[in-house]
Amino acid sequence: MHEDFVLQISDKLPLEGVAPLLCAGITTYSPLRHWKVGQGHKLGVVGLGGLGHMAVKFGAAFGAEVTMLSTSPNKEVDARRLGAHKFALTKDPEQLKGLKGYFDFIIDTVSAPHDYNAYLKLLDTNGIMICVGVPPTPMEIVGFNLLGNRLSIAGSGIGGIPETQEMLDYCAENNITSDVEVIDMAYINEAYERMMKGDVKYRFVIDLATL
Amino acid sequence: MHEDFVLQISDKLPLEGVAPLLCAGITTYSPLRHWKVGQGHKLGVVGLGGLGHMAVKFGAAFGAEVTMLSTSPNKEVDARRLGAHKFALTKDPEQLKGLKGYFDFIIDTVSAPHDYNAYLKLLDTNGIMICVGVPPTPMEIVGFNLLGNRLSIAGSGIGGIPETQEMLDYCAENNITSDVEVIDMAYINEAYERMMKGDVKYRFVIDLATL
Repeated sequence: MHEDFVLQISDKLPLEGVAPLLCAGITTYSPLRHWKVGQGHKLGVVGLGGLGHMAVKFGAAFGAEVTMLSTSPNKEVDARRLGAHKFALTKDPEQLKGLKGYFDFIIDTVSAPHDYNAYLKLLDTNGIMICVGVPPTPMEIVGFNLLGNRLSIAGSGIGGIPETQEMLDYCAENNITSDVEVIDMAYINEAYERMMKGDVKYRFVIDLATL
Repeated sequence: MHEDFVLQISDKLPLEGVAPLLCAGITTYSPLRHWKVGQGHKLGVVGLGGLGHMAVKFGAAFGAEVTMLSTSPNKEVDARRLGAHKFALTKDPEQLKGLKGYFDFIIDTVSAPHDYNAYLKLLDTNGIMICVGVPPTPMEIVGFNLLGNRLSIAGSGIGGIPETQEMLDYCAENNITSDVEVIDMAYINEAYERMMKGDVKYRFVIDLATL
């Protein structure tokens, strides 16, 4: 292994909870750091999956007020356990109306096609919507939604090696790992089917000892 | 007139060239200031009309290297006269290819539907595409274009009174006005038809003495 591509993982952290940090972890850590999300900011997180649950953990650890924006009411308990301060059901127009212009940042972790304009309306002046998921079809943005409050839509993908090390060190200091379900190799087909249905909290990790 | 809504216009500036500054001027000045576009930056300007010609003037005055991105080769002479350092014909795939990842900022002044993804590819890492025009149909953004280089698409509309005064003072100090064609009131229908064809450099101003 070339030394430039080696990362150090603290003994304090359980390895199975670290594995997804190298993808879902850095993918959410990097943009939240780049845009300096923290104390005094209101952060909305769209989607509670592998990426979303890390965005909630990091957002709360960085000092932001975190609101989970979800289509399923049964995600509220888990969102709050992971560190979210608030929960809003995005299918309920009344709840969305109450959040108009509320957020400084929204991190959107959903990679299925969805309505970006509904979320843009929840941003305050100069608000930034950070997309870390890529839908297979183009995002349709109503231009006027961006102009009125000088909003931005940004994208961010993964992160570099130095920032990944920084993230791992931060996780060791702050006792942050990914919530995982460790499985045997023999379970992989069933795990795949469950993943396709979104039935995983929040990443499967294969125990390679079972190979 | 309420004192909060009065602007002071320097005697140094001809009034007819100032009139469009209160719309096209502040609309381009404000985002370029907000995103601190200047020395060391490469700025692309999409569209050479009322907004675009002011974006070229301000971009150059702020010290950025300005490239006019246009579909019409016959706009090059005027773009350079207004302060653009470079000109690229956006219909020519070879010229676009040569500008891949080139710009720090692009200011897009076009309010007709057009392909945003072609311009996103011209942005460098962390590049920002600032839209000051609103197309009547949604902008179709390929998400992957944003993620790869951590790009942003932002919108900005007009500006407030204090910044408008700042812009007017800056224009007086730097001898900047809008290029206008002063017309009599009687010419207004013809001017309207010419405007619809884009045949105006770059704003009509009605001499109200002819009313």
